[in-house]
Amino acid sequence: MGELDATVHARLASIVGDTNVLTAAAETEPYLIDWRGSFRGRARAVVRPGNTAEVAAVVRFCADVGTPVVPQGGNTGLCGGATPDATGDEIVLALGRMNRVRDIDPANATITVEAGMPLATVQEHAAAAGLYFPLSLASEGSCTIGGNLSTNAGGTAVLRFGNARDLTLGLEIVLADGRVWNGLRGLRKDNTGYDLKQLFIGAEGTLGIATAAVLKLFPVPRTQVTALVALASVNAAVALLGRLQSALSDRLTGFELVSGVALALSRKLDPALPAPMPGHAWYVLVQVDDSAQDSPIATLLETTVATAVEAGVVLDATIAHSAAQAARLWALRENISEAQRREGPNIKHDISLAVSSIPAFLEECNAALLAAFPRARLIIFGHLGDGNLHYNLSAPEDHSAVDFLDNATAVNRIVYDRVAHHGGSFSAEHGIGQLKRDELLRYKSDVELDLMRAIKRALDPRGLFNPGKVL
Amino acid sequence: MGELDATVHARLASIVGDTNVLTAAAETEPYLIDWRGSFRGRARAVVRPGNTAEVAAVVRFCADVGTPVVPQGGNTGLCGGATPDATGDEIVLALGRMNRVRDIDPANATITVEAGMPLATVQEHAAAAGLYFPLSLASEGSCTIGGNLSTNAGGTAVLRFGNARDLTLGLEIVLADGRVWNGLRGLRKDNTGYDLKQLFIGAEGTLGIATAAVLKLFPVPRTQVTALVALASVNAAVALLGRLQSALSDRLTGFELVSGVALALSRKLDPALPAPMPGHAWYVLVQVDDSAQDSPIATLLETTVATAVEAGVVLDATIAHSAAQAARLWALRENISEAQRREGPNIKHDISLAVSSIPAFLEECNAALLAAFPRARLIIFGHLGDGNLHYNLSAPEDHSAVDFLDNATAVNRIVYDRVAHHGGSFSAEHGIGQLKRDELLRYKSDVELDLMRAIKRALDPRGLFNPGKVL
Repeated sequence: MGELDATVHARLASIVGDTNVLTAAAETEPYLIDWRGSFRGRARAVVRPGNTAEVAAVVRFCADVGTPVVPQGGNTGLCGGATPDATGDEIVLALGRMNRVRDIDPANATITVEAGMPLATVQEHAAAAGLYFPLSLASEGSCTIGGNLSTNAGGTAVLRFGNARDLTLGLEIVLADGRVWNGLRGLRKDNTGYDLKQLFIGAEGTLGIATAAVLKLFPVPRTQVTALVALASVNAAVALLGRLQSALSDRLTGFELVSGVALALSRKLDPALPAPMPGHAWYVLVQVDDSAQDSPIATLLETTVATAVEAGVVLDATIAHSAAQAARLWALRENISEAQRREGPNIKHDISLAVSSIPAFLEECNAALLAAFPRARLIIFGHLGDGNLHYNLSAPEDHSAVDFLDNATAVNRIVYDRVAHHGGSFSAEHGIGQLKRDELLRYKSDVELDLMRAIKRALDPRGLFNPGKVL
Repeated sequence: MGELDATVHARLASIVGDTNVLTAAAETEPYLIDWRGSFRGRARAVVRPGNTAEVAAVVRFCADVGTPVVPQGGNTGLCGGATPDATGDEIVLALGRMNRVRDIDPANATITVEAGMPLATVQEHAAAAGLYFPLSLASEGSCTIGGNLSTNAGGTAVLRFGNARDLTLGLEIVLADGRVWNGLRGLRKDNTGYDLKQLFIGAEGTLGIATAAVLKLFPVPRTQVTALVALASVNAAVALLGRLQSALSDRLTGFELVSGVALALSRKLDPALPAPMPGHAWYVLVQVDDSAQDSPIATLLETTVATAVEAGVVLDATIAHSAAQAARLWALRENISEAQRREGPNIKHDISLAVSSIPAFLEECNAALLAAFPRARLIIFGHLGDGNLHYNLSAPEDHSAVDFLDNATAVNRIVYDRVAHHGGSFSAEHGIGQLKRDELLRYKSDVELDLMRAIKRALDPRGLFNPGKVL
């Protein structure tokens, strides 16, 4: 340890305690590499504060000595947004010790939690109070609510409940000068000046460090129905979406598109999963939930799907008759990412479009990709109800991993150029991090980039918060 | 007209056409005084651009000559946010000519409209496409969507659909340097950098001028039920809110508290309105809507209210059996503001609190006000479901108007200090404008004010957009 490092270590230890300043390689390792293993960095130290005052003191100290700060929650991000750079000059500020409930107010349907609480724990506290926190994603056991807010996480219930931003009423933020902004308000209506919390949500820790949040809670779903539907085309899926939204309104909480290829991959990973209607080009997993009493949604879903079959929109359908059956249908969907990983290398995209643009986009983009890479396999699935697709390319079965990934830039260009042409987004729910900074520069207008830079300069003029991420 | 004015006039006329630069007193008068008649200003000219390019050219010209710009929509704001100052140096930029639909996409459930379109016209375009735009407020016939977004308007359906912010997917903004930011995206998920539109929503034209927006549409309500309920206390109203939300979930779209005093005033204005359950201390107007088929909400509402009567939470209730009956119950609520105006001078507050804090707040604040002003009449009503109350004081019946309004500062201090004590907001849905700037300085922390000023400097460094408003 050099002299500077020793001084820094001592100062940090005086703030958070010696055991919460990690510098040994074996201890820091999990914080220095991202979940996918795509990014690896170094750090002067990993610092684990226990409360907001400690975060503020660490930030003030880092500002004094000009040390950049990389905030980290559960380290489950997919774009390298929480991984330090290679210089070893940064510190990682790991918020996992800040995991308390500060307040729960059932009559106001709000909960106030610290940033390091795992998402699943937030859900559990809501349930214990007889309420429901609808944010849900695959990593919910280990991702933290602070990370969810900093990336404006999406997940499986956006169709009804919106993104993490829509679930947030208030924030507590440590600013770049070490001051604390207390915006922990639990109000449904408040128009007293600029809505500052919106700036920090989705900013990936580049404007401030979220230390606590007030979140909205909802009535618990009383009735839940799951169906799998087979269709001939994505056009038919969009038509079915319209029919279901017309019949069921916002009780339609999930509408997940799965291509026949993706479903087959999922069953290849786990052949014990059901295959009720094999051989179709497209499937949709439909989730319908109702929190009100005496819900007619089961009957409504059946009759709407039956009418769609009669109209030729739907080819076949199966409705789960138990929670266990529903879980097995959902497993078909949730398996896809892991199944794809086992198939070898793949090039992934997390795109969104207006729902109405998706059929035309897929037709054009599939054709362009297969023209350029005739033997690649398209793995298409995602949250069609939100216009969000995970649009991935797997290597041909006999292809070498390294060679295939060499095509990533060319593939990305084909996909993102067409997304841009249709007014879509090259990052629907995964953010920018390190991974998509070049795409940001390529696809955003100069005006938009200038606005973002002006905001960054205004809130973090020295660029000490998560440098090299987003902008 | 002086030489400068003549030059300015000619330049502006070259951009928007001579007939769209108003300088004659008879023509400019309606733009120079606010709806309540509380604020009156002067202006170098009222300029009426017809499209975004004209707005941008006007702003560039104003930036060149250092002339401040006051954007104005339907001029229905309640805080003087769209009224120019007294210097006569500013121009009013009236956006009413920009009232076109740019796009409507039923499959994506979005509409793209220009800022000057009246809110009611947005609702009509949505309905014509078989969809529903839920933002609704008393001034919807004349307020514009640009003004709604710039003030983050609330209204009668926030409980289910949120504020104007929650209904907005994209914006087009003319910036202080005259450049245009095209953020007209119709995406439900997009995490590509800072969510810039959030900055401009609710900023009251101080950061940029909204010229168009992409708005979310929803399925049309198929079933609507209205009830009036009598209760002994606000505590009972909060308990009923919990019961209704548990039984009906988000089909509860309106939960409007009305005090017995306020209801009596309303019937004094229009004695032909129904008085089904006279003599109670508190009432709640309940609105339940369902867009799904085969809705059980009518029965659910009846049984939930009946159970609440049995439990002693509700004293009495009446359910409308026709749309006409429902409209007459709503008229009781909607009449209150006008009824109050006819009673003479009053001191108004648009406050919000956590729903759970409202009973304690009312008990304390009512007592404090009546101790200071024993003969004043408390007129309490509002969107209890959102925690938003219109908490007003009317003069004693025999009191002189001018004398009573001399008490405004003392009354405001009693009310807002208690609102702050309970973590509430002194402006729930009306914004800041000119009216509440002093309250902003008084009740916001230095940290929050510094953040707002940093944002203002970053986006409008010369302070040319709506100076003297908000900050």
